[in-house]
Amino acid sequence: MSEANGRPQGSLAGVRVLDLTQFEAGPSCTEVLAWLGAEVVKVENPNGGDPGRLTPGADADRASPYFLLFNANKKSITLNLKTPRGLEIAKEMASRADVFIENFAPGAIERLGLGYDVVHGLNPGIVYAQVKGFGEGSPYQNYLAFDMIAQACGGVMSITGDPAGPPVKPGATLGDTGTGMLLAISILAALFRRKDTGVGERLDVAMQDAMLHYIRVAFSVTERSGAPAPRAGAKLLSGGNAPCGIFPCAPGGANDFIYVYTSRANRAHWHRLLRVIGREELIGDPRYEEVAARVENEAEVDEMIANWTRQRDKNEAMRLMGEAGIPAGAVRDTKELREDPDFLRRGMMQVVDHPANGPFTMPGWPVRHDGETLPIEPAPLLGQHNTEVLEQWLGMNAAQVAALREEGVL
Amino acid sequence: MSEANGRPQGSLAGVRVLDLTQFEAGPSCTEVLAWLGAEVVKVENPNGGDPGRLTPGADADRASPYFLLFNANKKSITLNLKTPRGLEIAKEMASRADVFIENFAPGAIERLGLGYDVVHGLNPGIVYAQVKGFGEGSPYQNYLAFDMIAQACGGVMSITGDPAGPPVKPGATLGDTGTGMLLAISILAALFRRKDTGVGERLDVAMQDAMLHYIRVAFSVTERSGAPAPRAGAKLLSGGNAPCGIFPCAPGGANDFIYVYTSRANRAHWHRLLRVIGREELIGDPRYEEVAARVENEAEVDEMIANWTRQRDKNEAMRLMGEAGIPAGAVRDTKELREDPDFLRRGMMQVVDHPANGPFTMPGWPVRHDGETLPIEPAPLLGQHNTEVLEQWLGMNAAQVAALREEGVL
Repeated sequence: MSEANGRPQGSLAGVRVLDLTQFEAGPSCTEVLAWLGAEVVKVENPNGGDPGRLTPGADADRASPYFLLFNANKKSITLNLKTPRGLEIAKEMASRADVFIENFAPGAIERLGLGYDVVHGLNPGIVYAQVKGFGEGSPYQNYLAFDMIAQACGGVMSITGDPAGPPVKPGATLGDTGTGMLLAISILAALFRRKDTGVGERLDVAMQDAMLHYIRVAFSVTERSGAPAPRAGAKLLSGGNAPCGIFPCAPGGANDFIYVYTSRANRAHWHRLLRVIGREELIGDPRYEEVAARVENEAEVDEMIANWTRQRDKNEAMRLMGEAGIPAGAVRDTKELREDPDFLRRGMMQVVDHPANGPFTMPGWPVRHDGETLPIEPAPLLGQHNTEVLEQWLGMNAAQVAALREEGVL
Repeated sequence: MSEANGRPQGSLAGVRVLDLTQFEAGPSCTEVLAWLGAEVVKVENPNGGDPGRLTPGADADRASPYFLLFNANKKSITLNLKTPRGLEIAKEMASRADVFIENFAPGAIERLGLGYDVVHGLNPGIVYAQVKGFGEGSPYQNYLAFDMIAQACGGVMSITGDPAGPPVKPGATLGDTGTGMLLAISILAALFRRKDTGVGERLDVAMQDAMLHYIRVAFSVTERSGAPAPRAGAKLLSGGNAPCGIFPCAPGGANDFIYVYTSRANRAHWHRLLRVIGREELIGDPRYEEVAARVENEAEVDEMIANWTRQRDKNEAMRLMGEAGIPAGAVRDTKELREDPDFLRRGMMQVVDHPANGPFTMPGWPVRHDGETLPIEPAPLLGQHNTEVLEQWLGMNAAQVAALREEGVL
């Protein structure tokens, strides 16, 4: 990363992304392209913009925190795509873009007049990317989908939760951001190839299909058993290991727990654990020495660990176990993470000063480049970059932009 | 994608990846690079190789299904990095690679003599990438981590599960594959930049830090409330919407459920739902017409939906709701997904013929490129490509390779 003319120059400097996405699956994808230095121009309808702006926490003046989290470092222009002039401007911009991306409901982009054939016809070098709920050719291809629908249909819920209970919805938005990340990978590969060939590519991903990628350990279970992968509560889906689980800590709050694991691949973990919990006398005890024995006596094993963790704060327990070389992790909640000075110091959480919302704490891109976190710029106001973008991309002047605004095109 | 000389030419054709990763976080990252056409050479210790080969389902002749899932399309060479000659060969290969990647325990790569300073000194243009459990500078930087430790410490478990119950471990391996995908994005961006500049980059990501990226909706809740995001069971973390949840279907098996959602942004969803469940008479009824009223009467709303879903197979219920334009998704288990002819027909599941394991069904890369799924090649046998790679990368001949094998270097 370097700076030139006061603007950060990221890895993707010079790449232009025409971004017609909304909510999360598409915006999470284009946000990482923006963090990496691409110029991402978010095209929004003049009447409120991305509906993600209006999710809980929004008011007349401020976009929702949700919107701010998924749209940092982007530019926003308004464009009424249902007017002939608005559509024409979108096409002119598509002719000058490197990437076009959308995640409307099935069929909507074609109805707008910006389907693949049209855009590719205007710009054969474009990388044209789409997110849908279900794949083309799937029996569900015309169905609506949201994050949790993908997590249901894509197997994620079936392997989450207690063995005796119903399927559970994970809190992470794997259906949305999980899909967006996979599309970002394919876009970057297409841009890499295009640098030599000049040839564009059509990319499409379905949220249901993307879920399979994240549950492959569960497929390894089914490969072996021929049966559906079970719900295993806090344990491993593959079974056959102990101890591994979530143990209660003092003082007993909603997230006062610690995950403790011992790898099958390293028998030292169990011995280290016995030392930390003050049960050295059990080192070598045949009831617990081998993994198979510990699985047989799992209730006793778990109880001796819980007896120790219940008396300790989760962070203290993690420190003692971690220092001793035992894989263990305190369950952290979002308030603890947001306020953790470690994350702020390392730049994993940054405080961004948003012109309407004020100071706003948010996680940025977690991969460091040359030891540095990527800079975060606040999410744009609706139409904030109308003049700048139409001048730079299409050579318009301020009077032309003003006229478009009066005509209701912007 | 095109074919030349019978070999598929992917977007990353010509990119050489020296892959020292093991288990899942690293291998998931290098596998997608391989799917996209990079030449990924997996460097394994001659004594068993990647410990992921030995996870459940492995025997003397066959690697585990887990290994096959995360190592498709790669080449394998064996190299004893603890011999001087083995280390020397690794350095020679690093000099000729575009990407170097490892995910050993903290400090191990430096002890092996292949830390960033060494490799960058040999090859200033290299993209040097690392996955660790905790970030450099974190109080936990020397601690061991596995998928579930990252999901505990990174907030994912705190927002998964029933409001009245303990944190729940999601079944998806977000700590591993979720982290690997973010690193792949940064690697591709670095390769893109390097094409013009020739300059390499150092990339590192911590699994704990990566988790924050997938739970940003939960941070939006904390931003508004100042409190930890709750566990919300099957509901939205942000609350304030009904109906949304997991409903039971006939005949009542472990995964006979359907997720039903109605978007706040589209009031038509509720009316469509009333029609499908045969309660048209409630359209316009003030007890249910507005979202706020439905939230107030959520138990009644949920019961009227469950009365309908309980009498229907989940797939039939999904079909009726999906055709009517209601976001709804049957909970699918891994056996259903693996055997679904739709996934096989669309290439989202492919049957790969592995030389040792035989025919093996696995999901491939879910993003389609120009309408095609990327081809899957079976994961390599241990050391399968010793001769080929040492000849092509280092110009050795078969006799030299045989001598190295005799010396115990390979």
